[in-house]
Amino acid sequence: MPQAQSLTDVSIGVCYYPEHWPEAMWPEDARRMREAGISRVRIGEFAWSRLEPEPGTYDFDWLSRALDTLHGEGLQVVLGTPTATPPKWLVDSMPDMLPVDRHGRPRGFASRRHYCFSHAGYRRECARIVKALAETFGQHPAIVAWQTDNEYGCHDTVLSYSDEARLGFRHWLRDRYGSVAALNDAWGNVFWSMEYRSFDEIDLPSGTVTEANPAHRADFHRYSSDQVAAFNRVQVEIIRALSPGRDILHNFMTFFLDFDHYEVMKDLDIATWDSYPLGSLDVFPGDAAHKTAFMRTGDPDLQAFHHDLYRGAGRGRFWVMEQQPGPVNWAHYNVDAQPGLVRLWGLEGFAHGAETISYFRWRQAPFAQEQFHAGLNLPDGEPDRAFHEVKQLSQDLASLGPLGASASARVALVFSYEAAWFLRVQPQGRSFSYVEQVFAMYRSLRRLGLDVDVVGPDAEVSGYALVLVPSMPHVPERLAASLAACKGTLLIAARSGSRTASHRIPDNLAPGILSGLLGVKVTRAESFRPHGAVPVRYDNENYSFDRWREFVVPEAGVEVLAETEDGHPAFTRKGRAHYLAGWPDDAFLNGVVERLAREAGLATGELPAGLRSRRRGPYRFVFNYGPAAADISPYFPASEFVLGQPRLEVGGVAVLHTDVPANG
Amino acid sequence: MPQAQSLTDVSIGVCYYPEHWPEAMWPEDARRMREAGISRVRIGEFAWSRLEPEPGTYDFDWLSRALDTLHGEGLQVVLGTPTATPPKWLVDSMPDMLPVDRHGRPRGFASRRHYCFSHAGYRRECARIVKALAETFGQHPAIVAWQTDNEYGCHDTVLSYSDEARLGFRHWLRDRYGSVAALNDAWGNVFWSMEYRSFDEIDLPSGTVTEANPAHRADFHRYSSDQVAAFNRVQVEIIRALSPGRDILHNFMTFFLDFDHYEVMKDLDIATWDSYPLGSLDVFPGDAAHKTAFMRTGDPDLQAFHHDLYRGAGRGRFWVMEQQPGPVNWAHYNVDAQPGLVRLWGLEGFAHGAETISYFRWRQAPFAQEQFHAGLNLPDGEPDRAFHEVKQLSQDLASLGPLGASASARVALVFSYEAAWFLRVQPQGRSFSYVEQVFAMYRSLRRLGLDVDVVGPDAEVSGYALVLVPSMPHVPERLAASLAACKGTLLIAARSGSRTASHRIPDNLAPGILSGLLGVKVTRAESFRPHGAVPVRYDNENYSFDRWREFVVPEAGVEVLAETEDGHPAFTRKGRAHYLAGWPDDAFLNGVVERLAREAGLATGELPAGLRSRRRGPYRFVFNYGPAAADISPYFPASEFVLGQPRLEVGGVAVLHTDVPANG
Amino acid sequence: MPQAQSLTDVSIGVCYYPEHWPEAMWPEDARRMREAGISRVRIGEFAWSRLEPEPGTYDFDWLSRALDTLHGEGLQVVLGTPTATPPKWLVDSMPDMLPVDRHGRPRGFASRRHYCFSHAGYRRECARIVKALAETFGQHPAIVAWQTDNEYGCHDTVLSYSDEARLGFRHWLRDRYGSVAALNDAWGNVFWSMEYRSFDEIDLPSGTVTEANPAHRADFHRYSSDQVAAFNRVQVEIIRALSPGRDILHNFMTFFLDFDHYEVMKDLDIATWDSYPLGSLDVFPGDAAHKTAFMRTGDPDLQAFHHDLYRGAGRGRFWVMEQQPGPVNWAHYNVDAQPGLVRLWGLEGFAHGAETISYFRWRQAPFAQEQFHAGLNLPDGEPDRAFHEVKQLSQDLASLGPLGASASARVALVFSYEAAWFLRVQPQGRSFSYVEQVFAMYRSLRRLGLDVDVVGPDAEVSGYALVLVPSMPHVPERLAASLAACKGTLLIAARSGSRTASHRIPDNLAPGILSGLLGVKVTRAESFRPHGAVPVRYDNENYSFDRWREFVVPEAGVEVLAETEDGHPAFTRKGRAHYLAGWPDDAFLNGVVERLAREAGLATGELPAGLRSRRRGPYRFVFNYGPAAADISPYFPASEFVLGQPRLEVGGVAVLHTDVPANG
Ligand SMILES: [Zn+2]
Ligand SMILES: [Zn+2]
Ligand SMILES: [Zn+2]
Repeated sequence: MPQAQSLTDVSIGVCYYPEHWPEAMWPEDARRMREAGISRVRIGEFAWSRLEPEPGTYDFDWLSRALDTLHGEGLQVVLGTPTATPPKWLVDSMPDMLPVDRHGRPRGFASRRHYCFSHAGYRRECARIVKALAETFGQHPAIVAWQTDNEYGCHDTVLSYSDEARLGFRHWLRDRYGSVAALNDAWGNVFWSMEYRSFDEIDLPSGTVTEANPAHRADFHRYSSDQVAAFNRVQVEIIRALSPGRDILHNFMTFFLDFDHYEVMKDLDIATWDSYPLGSLDVFPGDAAHKTAFMRTGDPDLQAFHHDLYRGAGRGRFWVMEQQPGPVNWAHYNVDAQPGLVRLWGLEGFAHGAETISYFRWRQAPFAQEQFHAGLNLPDGEPDRAFHEVKQLSQDLASLGPLGASASARVALVFSYEAAWFLRVQPQGRSFSYVEQVFAMYRSLRRLGLDVDVVGPDAEVSGYALVLVPSMPHVPERLAASLAACKGTLLIAARSGSRTASHRIPDNLAPGILSGLLGVKVTRAESFRPHGAVPVRYDNENYSFDRWREFVVPEAGVEVLAETEDGHPAFTRKGRAHYLAGWPDDAFLNGVVERLAREAGLATGELPAGLRSRRRGPYRFVFNYGPAAADISPYFPASEFVLGQPRLEVGGVAVLHTDVPANG
Repeated sequence: MPQAQSLTDVSIGVCYYPEHWPEAMWPEDARRMREAGISRVRIGEFAWSRLEPEPGTYDFDWLSRALDTLHGEGLQVVLGTPTATPPKWLVDSMPDMLPVDRHGRPRGFASRRHYCFSHAGYRRECARIVKALAETFGQHPAIVAWQTDNEYGCHDTVLSYSDEARLGFRHWLRDRYGSVAALNDAWGNVFWSMEYRSFDEIDLPSGTVTEANPAHRADFHRYSSDQVAAFNRVQVEIIRALSPGRDILHNFMTFFLDFDHYEVMKDLDIATWDSYPLGSLDVFPGDAAHKTAFMRTGDPDLQAFHHDLYRGAGRGRFWVMEQQPGPVNWAHYNVDAQPGLVRLWGLEGFAHGAETISYFRWRQAPFAQEQFHAGLNLPDGEPDRAFHEVKQLSQDLASLGPLGASASARVALVFSYEAAWFLRVQPQGRSFSYVEQVFAMYRSLRRLGLDVDVVGPDAEVSGYALVLVPSMPHVPERLAASLAACKGTLLIAARSGSRTASHRIPDNLAPGILSGLLGVKVTRAESFRPHGAVPVRYDNENYSFDRWREFVVPEAGVEVLAETEDGHPAFTRKGRAHYLAGWPDDAFLNGVVERLAREAGLATGELPAGLRSRRRGPYRFVFNYGPAAADISPYFPASEFVLGQPRLEVGGVAVLHTDVPANG
Repeated sequence: MPQAQSLTDVSIGVCYYPEHWPEAMWPEDARRMREAGISRVRIGEFAWSRLEPEPGTYDFDWLSRALDTLHGEGLQVVLGTPTATPPKWLVDSMPDMLPVDRHGRPRGFASRRHYCFSHAGYRRECARIVKALAETFGQHPAIVAWQTDNEYGCHDTVLSYSDEARLGFRHWLRDRYGSVAALNDAWGNVFWSMEYRSFDEIDLPSGTVTEANPAHRADFHRYSSDQVAAFNRVQVEIIRALSPGRDILHNFMTFFLDFDHYEVMKDLDIATWDSYPLGSLDVFPGDAAHKTAFMRTGDPDLQAFHHDLYRGAGRGRFWVMEQQPGPVNWAHYNVDAQPGLVRLWGLEGFAHGAETISYFRWRQAPFAQEQFHAGLNLPDGEPDRAFHEVKQLSQDLASLGPLGASASARVALVFSYEAAWFLRVQPQGRSFSYVEQVFAMYRSLRRLGLDVDVVGPDAEVSGYALVLVPSMPHVPERLAASLAACKGTLLIAARSGSRTASHRIPDNLAPGILSGLLGVKVTRAESFRPHGAVPVRYDNENYSFDRWREFVVPEAGVEVLAETEDGHPAFTRKGRAHYLAGWPDDAFLNGVVERLAREAGLATGELPAGLRSRRRGPYRFVFNYGPAAADISPYFPASEFVLGQPRLEVGGVAVLHTDVPANG
C-alpha cells in the first residue's frame, strides 16, 4: 500500500471535509493528497449534525470509513471535535446555551460558535460527544492528534452576557476575593457608591449608564478567559484518557486577545494557528498605503510574529493549522495571492519552527458561507494554483532534508493578554492599541534581521540578551524579578507597572513594581489626537511621541538619553534598564531598538523593506515580501545557496547554509 | 361647467390632501389646478384615520364631497388606499402587526408604514377598508385610477423579522423545497452542521453569530418580496371587482431593490414612481464633487434610468406619481432646484413615455413631518415658483400637441432584483454595488445619446441590436436561451452565471449556464480596496479593473480583446458575445460600450457632459443638466426646433422635429 | 484656630471625597487646603452607599466628623446630595427606576446617574435621604451651600423612554392641551393618520418606522426638561425648609442642551458649572487644526461663553464648581494643560464674575473610573503642578483685592434651549447645529473685545445697545415685544420666527411674529452639503452662505445690504433690525457683527487671535490663549498693569487698571 509520509522532520497538511463530498470521491482525494506531498489531514471539526443526526443517535460509520480511506493512503489524521457547531436540535433543547451580546440579545443558530462558554449544560453535551468520539476513534491508527473545537472566540464569542455567565462571574469573584468587602476595596467601589453588599448583587459590566469600573471590566475579561480554558479542559481530559499517545491541540487566530492563550495551552500539547496573511492585512490596523503595497503578499512581519507567538505558547511546538491558499471570503476586500506566496508562507512557517503547515481547504466548497474561499482544488475538482505550489513546497522540503530544531533567539518580546485587556478597558486615548504597539516593536526587531522569541508574562527572561516589554500595566512579581535578574539589555515601554493586579494605581505610582529597576516615577500621562505630538530630540535627530506621553521624574543617577522639546525625559536608562516614556514614532523606535540591539551585542544590519530572514537548524531562510525584487547577497555575503538565488523576486525564497554566526 | 382636461395625449397631475385643509378652500384649489393645466389629482392615500375615525365607523362623506368638488372642475382622480398608515386603534387591536427590525425590536406607531407584510390579520383589515372604499367610490365618475398603498418598502419595511414572518417563511420554504432534506441539500447545510430536521426548526436569518448561509438569506429576500406582491394582490382583486374600467397602479421609488417590482406589476396596469432628483442625488452613492456639481439639477441619468425601468416594468405604461417641486425634507442636505428644472423634469418624463407627471404636492404642509417639503403653493396659499413652471409645462405640452408612442429602443439593459439580493447577500468586497454597476452601464449608453429599454430577467431580448447584462449571479434558463438566440451584440458583466438558483457555484463553474455562449471559465475572483486596482491594456490605452477582477480561462477560438497587466484575459469575445472579467473604470467601460454600439450598427456621437436626449413620437427632446450652457446644433444638425434654441442654458430643454434616423 | 478664608470677595474651592481616604489623612488635607488659599470645599455628592449602607440605616457620623475637620480649618462646605448615585440595594428595590434608552433597553447599575427623572418612587427616595441629611446638617456651621445631585443629564440621561415617562408624558400632554382633539390639531396629526382618540394612546417618540412628528418630539423634549426641574425642586424645597440661609446650587455642564437650565434655575440661588477646557475642546465640534492648535489651552471663547451663560442663568451669581486641573479621563484624547493655564482659567472665571472657582479634585483617585483624572495632588499625596498654580492664584487674588461687581455688558446674545430642541428635531440639513451657530456669534463678538451677556428667551433685552438672536424657530411673544421695543441694534439669524410654539409654520410664514419688525417674508430654505455654498457679495467683498440659505422677499423700504450671487437678499435691514438669511461663513459673520457693533456705538478694536479680554470692577483682565506670545500694549494703550506685563506669553494673564471707557 502506498503511504503518504513526510520525507523530513516536518509535514504538510490539509483541511478536508469528507462529509461535503460523495463518498466515491474520497479515495481519489486521498490519493492526490499523498501525491502532492501532503501527509496530514484535519477532519471532522464541523460535522456534529452528521455525527449525531438525531439526539442521542450517533452515526460514526461514515467517519470511520473516511479515516480508513485516509489511513489507506498513509495519511495521518487530526480529528476535530465538532463542538464549534452544535446542531439545531441541541440548541433547541437548551436555548439558554446561546451567547448573549452586550445589549442582552441572544445570538442565534444558523452559522457557527453559537454557544456561551459559561454554560454548564453545553459543556456536558460537549463532554458527551467528545467521549463518544474518543471511545470510538481514540485508538484508530490514522489519528495522530485531536483538535478541540475550532477557533475559540471567533466572531466575538468570548465575552457573553448570559444569565449563566452572570452567575458564574459571581461565583468566580467570590473565589477570587473571598468577601464582598475585599472586592469593594480592591475595585474602589466607594467611588460613585458602587459598593455591593453581597456577591449576588454584582452584574456583568454591560449596559451601564457610563463606563463601568475598569476593575469590574478587567475581572470580567479574566473570568471569560478562564471559561475558555475550562471549556477546553473538559475535552482534553476525556481525550487524554481515551486516546493516549496522541497530541491535543487547538487552532488559534491572528491578533486575537479575548482570552489568555497561555492558560489554554497549559492543557494542550501543540499550539496551532490559522494563518490568513491577506485577509489579516485587510482587516487589522494599518494605513491604506501599506495595505495596498502588500495586498498580494501580506504584511512582512505578521505571519512571523504569530509563528513566534505560538511557538512560545506551545513551549516550542507549533503548527499552522489553516494556511491561506488564495482569496478568502471574509475580509472587507479579498484579493488573490501573488503567485509563489502560498509556497513562501509555508516555508516561512517551517523556518520559524513549525512542525506542520496545513492548508485550508482541500477543495473549494460550492455552497454555504465560504463559497468564495479558495482551496487547493476548484469546486469542479481541477487543481487550482495553490495545489501546484504545495507540491513545489513538498519538493523543496525533500531537497532540504530534516530542518532540525528552531533556532533559539537571543531577543525576547513579552506579550500579555492581561495587558491587552487592561489597555482596552482604560485606553485613555482612542488611538492607544496594545497590538499595534507590540507589533511595531516586533517589526523594529525583525527589520534588523533578528530572531525573536515572543514570551508570556510568566516566562523566565533573565537569559536573553535583549528583552522588550511593551506597555504592560500590571507586571506580575515573577516577571519583575526575572527582569531584575536579567543581565541583558531591557527596554520597558510606557504604562508598564502603572496598575496593580486590581487595576489600581500603585501606591508608589507608575512604574510601580519596576520603580527600583527603572529609577523613574511617572506623575502624569497624556494622549494625543492624530497630529498632536510632542517633538523629541534624540541622538541629534528630531523624532516625536504621538498617541501617548508621560511626565517622568528620574531619580539621581538615571541617565536621560532623550528629552522632549518641552524639557521632560523621553528615554531613560538605569544600568541596562531603559524606559520609553511615550509612544515613539517609527523612526524613533527603530533608532532606540537598533541602539539597544547593538548594546546587547547583537549584529544589526538593517534589511531592505520587505526582506525578512529566519534561521532554523543549519539554514537561514530569506523571504522577499516586496514591493520589489532584491539582491540579497550584500546582506548574507558568506552564504551558500541551498535554494534560490541571490536575486530574490517578490515572493521569492532563498535558503542558505551559513557559517557566519547569526545574530538574534 | 369648466372642465380640466389634457390638451394632448399626456396629463399633468398633482397630489392633494383635502383632509389637511378647510373644506371651504377646496373649490378654489380645484379651480386653480385646472387653470394651471393640471387634469389629474391623487388623493386619499394617508387618510385612514379620517375615513374610519373609530373602529368600524366609516366617514366617507368628506371624501365624497372632495371627489365631487374635483369632478366639478373636470379633474380626474387617482384614489389611494390608505393602508400605508393604519390608525392607532388598529395597531392597538393587534400589536403584532408591527414590523420587526433585524434586532427583533418591533417598530412602533407614530409615523407611517408600521405594518409587517406577512401579517394575515392586517391583510384582512386592509381588504375590509379597501372593499368599503371600492364599494362606495368604485363607480364614481371622477375616479380614473386607484393607487394601492404608498411606496411599498419605504423606510426599510420589506424585511420584517416578526413571528408571523418566521411562520410564513417556513411555510414558503416547505412549498419551495418539498422536503427538509431537499432544502438542506440545496443550501449546503452540511457546512457548519446547519442541517434542519424539520421546517419548523428554521428561523429567520438574523442575529446569527456570524453571517447566515447566503442561500438562507437569499430565500428570505425572495420570501419577503413575495409577501409584498401578495399584500398588493389582495387589494387589486377587490378593486378589479368593484371598480371596473379603472387602472390600478402603485407608486414605486428610486433605486429600491428590496422586492421584485416585476412581480408586483404582474397584478397592476401602470407602473408609477416618485421622482425626487435632488433628494436622490444627495442620498445615493456618488462622489462629493459630482453631488455638488449637479446639486440643483439632479443627476443627468438618474431620472431617465427610472423612467426606462418603470416603462419596462409597466409593459409600456408608466407615470411619475410624485415629482419634486423644490426642496424636500428628507435628504441629508436639501437644496432648491435650479429655476426651470421643475419644468425640465416634467418634459423629460414625457419624453421617456410617461402618460402622466404628477407633482407632489399641491400646497406645502405647515405641520407634521414634511413641513420643509415644498409644494406648488406656499403654506399661506401663494403660488410658489413650481406653480409657474407647471403652468409653463402645460403650455409647452399644448404647443407640442399629441406626443404619440414612446420610441422603441434598440438597446436593452437587463435589470434583476434577484441579482441585487444575491450580490447584497454575498458581495465578497465591500465596494461591490449592483446598483452602481447597472447605473454606470446605463450612463455609458446614455452619453452616446442612445435610447435604452431597461428589461427584466424574464424579458425576451433576442430582438435587440445590443444587450447589456450587468452582474447577474443567477441567470434563468429562459434568459440564457434568449441571449443565445439574440443576433445582436451582447455584453455580459463579471459574476453573471456564477450562481445557481440555490445560490451555489454551478458544477461547471462560472459563468455556468452562459459558459457555452461566452466560451470562458472563471476559476477565481478578487475584490479590491480603493486604490488597489489591476491595470488593463485595451485598444492601445491604459485602463483598469477596480473593485472586482476574475481569472478567466478562455476556450479555443475565444478572442481576448483586452488583457490585464499580469497577463489574464480582461475582455473576451466569442462571436457577438462579450465578457468583461472585472469592474471596469469609467473610461474603460465607455470605450467598451462605444465599441459594441458601433458593432451593433448604432450611431454613436458622444454628447457633452450633462446633455441628454430622448425620442418620443415625432420629437427628439434634448435636456441640459449642466454644468454649463451648450450649443446643441453640432449634435443634431438636420433638426428643426419645435421648442427651445440651439443654445441651451443649464435647465434648458429643446424639442426637435427630425428626419435623421435616430440611433438607440 | 487657623481659619481658611478668602482675602477678597471671591473664593477658591476644591472638590473633596473624604470617604475615599483614611480618616487619619483628613486633618492634614484640610490644613493644606487652607495653606493653598482654598476656602471652600464641596463634599458628599456621590456618597450614598456610605451614608446609608443598608436600607434605612444611616451612617452620618463620618460625614459629621469630616465637616468638623474642615470647619476646624475654617473651610466652608458645599454639601452635595448623593442622588446621582443611588446604591445597588435601592435600584434592586425598584428596578423600574432605571433610565431606558431609545431602543427600550434599561440602563443598568454600576456607574452613575442610573435613574429616570420621571420615576416617582425614586423621587420619594431622594426626598427621604435629602431630608435626613438636611435635618442632620442643615444648621451645621461649616455648610454655606448645598448642591443638588450632580451634573443633571450627564451621560445622556434626560430623555428616558421608561414606562413611567410614558405615563408622565401622557399626563403632561393632557395638562398642556386639555383635549386630544386640541393636541391632534396642534401637532397636525391628520398627516399620515397619526390622530389619537385619547391621551392614553400616545407613546414616546422612539422606535418609529421613520421620524415621528416633530411636534411630538419637541413636546417630549419639553416634558423631559420639566422632569429635571421637578426632580430638582423636590430637593430644594426640603433644603430651604431645613437649612435656612444657605445657598442652593447645582453644577451644570458644557454645551449641554437636553433640559432648560433657566427653568431649573428658577428654584436655585447660584448657577455653577463644571469647566473642563481641554476635554471640551476635544469632544465638541471643531476642526482638527483648531483642536490641535489649542489642545493645551482650550478654546479661547469656550470658557468665557459658559461663564456668561451661567452668570445670566444665575441672575448674576455663578461659580465654577469643577475646574480642570490637568489631564482628564473622559475625552477621546486627554492632554495635559500648558503650565499656567490652571491659574489662567481661574482668573478668567473671576473676570467674568464668578464668586468661586472650585478645582476638581483635591487628590487624584488611584481606583475606579477616574484614575486618569488629575487632581491638585498626586495619588501618593505629593502636590501636583495644579496645586502650585492654585496657590499662585490665591496670591494673585490677594494682590488684587476685592474685585467688585461684574461689568454690565452692552451686548446681549439670546440663548434658548427650546431653539436647540426644535433644530435638533428638524435640522433639515445634517450640518445645522444650534450650538455651533451660537458659538460662532459669540466668538465674533469676543474677538472685538466686547463683554457679552448671554440671556434667555424670557429676558428683557430692550436696554442693550446690540442684541444678537441666533436661529430661534419659536420666538415667544414677550421676546418679540422686547426686541420691538429695543432702541439698540438687532441682528436676527435665519430660521428665527419660522415656527409656532406647536412647531408649525406660522400662518404668515417665517419670520412669523418678527415679520413686522424685520419686514421680510421667507418663502423657501435650503441646506448644503460641505462645499455646496452660495456666494454672497457684501461690502465689496466675496463671502458665502454655507449650511443654510433662505429665499427672502423684502417689503418695500427694507434695505438689502448684501445679495447672493443668484440675486436674492442675503442681509437686510429695516430700521435697526437686521436679518441674516443664511449661515454666513466666519469672515462674513465677522464683517456683519463688526458693522453692527460700530453702528451700536461700541468700540471695536479687533484683538489678535487667542487674545481675550473681560472687565470686572476696576479691572480689565487680558488672557493669552495662544498660539503665540503677544504684546498687548497697542490694544490697551492707556493702561496700568496691576498684574503681568505688556508681553503676554501663551497662558499669560494681565490685569490692568484702566480709565479708558470700555466697550461691550
Ligand atoms: Zn478557520
Ligand atoms: Zn412620497
Ligand atoms: Zn464632574
